[in-house]
Amino acid sequence: MRRIAQIIQLNQEDEAAYIRYHAQVWPEVLAKIAACNIRNYSIFLRNGVLFAYFEYHGTDYKEDMRRMSACPDTQRWWAIMDPMQSSMADAEAGEKWSELREVFHVE
Amino acid sequence: MRRIAQIIQLNQEDEAAYIRYHAQVWPEVLAKIAACNIRNYSIFLRNGVLFAYFEYHGTDYKEDMRRMSACPDTQRWWAIMDPMQSSMADAEAGEKWSELREVFHVE
Repeated sequence: MRRIAQIIQLNQEDEAAYIRYHAQVWPEVLAKIAACNIRNYSIFLRNGVLFAYFEYHGTDYKEDMRRMSACPDTQRWWAIMDPMQSSMADAEAGEKWSELREVFHVE
Repeated sequence: MRRIAQIIQLNQEDEAAYIRYHAQVWPEVLAKIAACNIRNYSIFLRNGVLFAYFEYHGTDYKEDMRRMSACPDTQRWWAIMDPMQSSMADAEAGEKWSELREVFHVE
């Protein structure tokens, strides 16, 4: 299992809508997340920055993310979410959410 | 169980030392963390910001944090870590790590 943490900026004017959507994420989107071997997935917000934490239980993260991005329901969901978000100023080219480095873990 | 996420700034000149310390956190500090009902505790770093995620399994978080801060080993550990960190610009008075709001969770 690999723990993954990611951040992205949330546009201030979209904060209420983002929270509302995430209180009732579409079942198809949740099912795809589970099918792509992601567990214990949380998103936190502070001061215009979204922080995601999840645990990846599969064996090919890149391929699972490719499968997720090929899912029509997920694409429809992202089409609503993406305009609400802005990648971090230091994101790599083409990077949406930016990964953090794990520096400590204890069970 | 309650999921808690917190952020704080890490002084750039202390990054290497912080990572080194956290690769080998003192056993007494880890034992106190466990005794205070904290599980699955990770700290991530990106661009001068530390992000902590943990799961609190106790029934009185405030009291457990009071117990942790009364632990001499933990105090010694914090005496080294605190000068490396700076609270967020928007932290409340007396706040060290700043809590984030959970806006989404799926198991």
